[in-house]
Amino acid sequence: MVATDTSLTDALVAALPEGSVILNPDSMHAYRWDRANDPDAGMPLAVVRVTSTEQVQTVVRLAAAANVPIVPRGAGSSLSGGSTAIDGCIVLSLDRMREITVDPVTRTVVTQPGAFNAEVKAAAAEHGLWYPPDPASFQFCSIGGNVATNAGGLCCVKYGVTTDYVLGMTVVLADGRAVTLGGPKIKDVAGYSLMKLFTGSEGTLCIITEIVLRLVPAQRPPTTLVATFATLEDAMATVLAITKTMRPSMLEFMDRVSINAVEDVTKMGLDRSAAAMLVVQSDEPAGHAGVEIAEVEALCAMHKATECFFTDDPDEGEAFVTARRIAIPSVEKLGTVLMEDVGVPLPRLGDLVVGIEQIAQNRDVVIAVIAHAGDGNTHPLLVFNPNDKAQQARAEIAYGEVMDLAVSLGGTITGEHGVGRLKRAWLPGYLGPDVLELNHRIKAAFDPAGILNPGVVLDPAWSAT
Amino acid sequence: MVATDTSLTDALVAALPEGSVILNPDSMHAYRWDRANDPDAGMPLAVVRVTSTEQVQTVVRLAAAANVPIVPRGAGSSLSGGSTAIDGCIVLSLDRMREITVDPVTRTVVTQPGAFNAEVKAAAAEHGLWYPPDPASFQFCSIGGNVATNAGGLCCVKYGVTTDYVLGMTVVLADGRAVTLGGPKIKDVAGYSLMKLFTGSEGTLCIITEIVLRLVPAQRPPTTLVATFATLEDAMATVLAITKTMRPSMLEFMDRVSINAVEDVTKMGLDRSAAAMLVVQSDEPAGHAGVEIAEVEALCAMHKATECFFTDDPDEGEAFVTARRIAIPSVEKLGTVLMEDVGVPLPRLGDLVVGIEQIAQNRDVVIAVIAHAGDGNTHPLLVFNPNDKAQQARAEIAYGEVMDLAVSLGGTITGEHGVGRLKRAWLPGYLGPDVLELNHRIKAAFDPAGILNPGVVLDPAWSAT
Repeated sequence: MVATDTSLTDALVAALPEGSVILNPDSMHAYRWDRANDPDAGMPLAVVRVTSTEQVQTVVRLAAAANVPIVPRGAGSSLSGGSTAIDGCIVLSLDRMREITVDPVTRTVVTQPGAFNAEVKAAAAEHGLWYPPDPASFQFCSIGGNVATNAGGLCCVKYGVTTDYVLGMTVVLADGRAVTLGGPKIKDVAGYSLMKLFTGSEGTLCIITEIVLRLVPAQRPPTTLVATFATLEDAMATVLAITKTMRPSMLEFMDRVSINAVEDVTKMGLDRSAAAMLVVQSDEPAGHAGVEIAEVEALCAMHKATECFFTDDPDEGEAFVTARRIAIPSVEKLGTVLMEDVGVPLPRLGDLVVGIEQIAQNRDVVIAVIAHAGDGNTHPLLVFNPNDKAQQARAEIAYGEVMDLAVSLGGTITGEHGVGRLKRAWLPGYLGPDVLELNHRIKAAFDPAGILNPGVVLDPAWSAT
Repeated sequence: MVATDTSLTDALVAALPEGSVILNPDSMHAYRWDRANDPDAGMPLAVVRVTSTEQVQTVVRLAAAANVPIVPRGAGSSLSGGSTAIDGCIVLSLDRMREITVDPVTRTVVTQPGAFNAEVKAAAAEHGLWYPPDPASFQFCSIGGNVATNAGGLCCVKYGVTTDYVLGMTVVLADGRAVTLGGPKIKDVAGYSLMKLFTGSEGTLCIITEIVLRLVPAQRPPTTLVATFATLEDAMATVLAITKTMRPSMLEFMDRVSINAVEDVTKMGLDRSAAAMLVVQSDEPAGHAGVEIAEVEALCAMHKATECFFTDDPDEGEAFVTARRIAIPSVEKLGTVLMEDVGVPLPRLGDLVVGIEQIAQNRDVVIAVIAHAGDGNTHPLLVFNPNDKAQQARAEIAYGEVMDLAVSLGGTITGEHGVGRLKRAWLPGYLGPDVLELNHRIKAAFDPAGILNPGVVLDPAWSAT
């Protein structure tokens, strides 16, 4: 039993290799925030940079004995505050755990959690293989964070999300035990799906220290189509017509605000007057991709696209995908951005986008909307001037209203970013009291003392009544 | 509080529509067994045939109050004894809950659990859509059972298993509350993945009363290849060469015993001297399927296939798939069959098949091996004469030895059938004490009184020590 904070930090320093424990407040700053930029981020007791499952076990055991909370952290790219520090916690940074081993025979990769998504993709590509999930942050988000949030991305409309690729994992439990689940087996139904439960649990049930992921053969070079529309209705009708009959490998949406923000930055000649732009890709085999994209083109024309262009040149196509990917930094040039992640059943996507426009007008804030349209998953970007406190307050109200709107349309408060701390207040309303209570049962079953990322996903003060 | 058995059955009769409750022992017989044919199947107190979520709630509440166990049952096609009755239980039959509603716009289907897999497929097909998972029993297994066991099938090598298609479900909890999870949303990461946890939980955590499944566009007509090999080694090397670079839509294996059993029945001219046969399909777009199958043919030739034949005629191709599907009933003509479901990482598949041959020889029993080879998931069929008790005993020993062998090769005791009652004794050895304990925590969190399918998956007498 460690009695005081100092004895815990002393014990950590004694138990871990030199250079593992950061205690200097200035040096800890870089580990306090993630991309949610929570102004209320706390000051950790210590930041610990581990390199192995055994070291994670050591940290968890010492923290558990001292009843000190642990905030696990990959690359710190959470948009929901899933790795925001709290006062007196131990930030458990996995950023040094980056080993990646590809097995081309079983077509799997074993990776440590701190490796970037892009590094996993690159390692797979060396063997002609592909790890599909592609969050927009893939170049700087960790694969452990991807698993912890069940991250999505652009290609998920055809290739599914992170959980669809997780075959195995090693995790450290709240009591410091390490267990291994699954492995390079494609099918396994022996016992409950703990692996699927831990995927998306945002560091609140266990610490993931190793992951086995399924790989697929390399993606074929895509054919890319870009279409603009004079009205939102036309664009949404096109999305529904496409998803009803086809499985494009990308189906992205940008609204007028996003188009203009991107055009401001890129001067690539986007139609500033368009209400919406779609970017669609097909990665079907040579010859057939053209057929699929020609069908998409016909659907765009049928729904009054004002312009429609397609190319089977991968570089030319990539320029339009880049326009979509660059939308977030482009909108960030307009002010501070609160990024949303709501999703709805596809037929309600139009209602969602129109409703968001209405909220922007009512609250007098700029909201740019980009969307993984084929999944019904949108990223409204709420822009405010950080020096205008009244506007910031209105943007924060609008942020909640967008979630309320999505839920009222049968949708979810988060499609792929996670609940984190930022969206926790909206989770009870979305889940309802019964499902919320089941979530708390799970938390209590795996982390009875509540030391793993407390305050993320669930409210530690909740009690069944 | 219902005090006696009679008062419980009286309460059930009073609470449910006429004809819902079966109390006559002769009429209950049909609901005692599943395809595991457990000789120790118990005699239920009552069989209840429900038609709605509300009726399931009524039954669960009455049973919970009386502390009487419930054995949920779909079509009774479990091969692991997952719906085998126990003495004094209520068999909760969902066989009347068969409504299916397809929404082509969201490309989803809402189905009640008693509908057959084939009925869901047919409903989807009316809209040009497809529900991929295809257990060999698809014509007579229920979709609720498929979700409860996370069932697989032949096309899973390319299209994934049941859990990959589950978007939403309504379940009745052990206390009689009903909750709805997910819905027709492609992405949703708000809260823990209860839906993924309940998928594959074999009726031990909740009763699934409605399911939302994702559909995909209709499968293209496949091109089919059949190849025979003089040695197991050649066939296995071919499997590895195919899976390393390609994603066929089917990759099935039959050993010599299976080939001969099928040839006995069909007289279709299979090579009785072959050590192994592979059936491979490609459903790539027109033109490209031929290219893919030509690559498979080249790999077969490289690995000394003795015969290799392919066809893009779907009916001709279907004849070979039928040969594979008919393997189980054909082997059943040789005697009573104990069906296995072990899986291993792909590179160990050859070791598994060779090891099974050795076990058959050691124990002097016939074992036919068929496999979803592309997934490393095998179905050894252990054959015995039911009148030869000594042989039956040897077969039962061999059944366990096959699981032990799979585990020793890094594999699983069940790839797609579930643990049920038949494999429960092998689960602790496979999971190890720590993961087993986590499984019990889950069970305790959702069914503290242990009334939902007790004895399936986990041993009710287990205690942490």
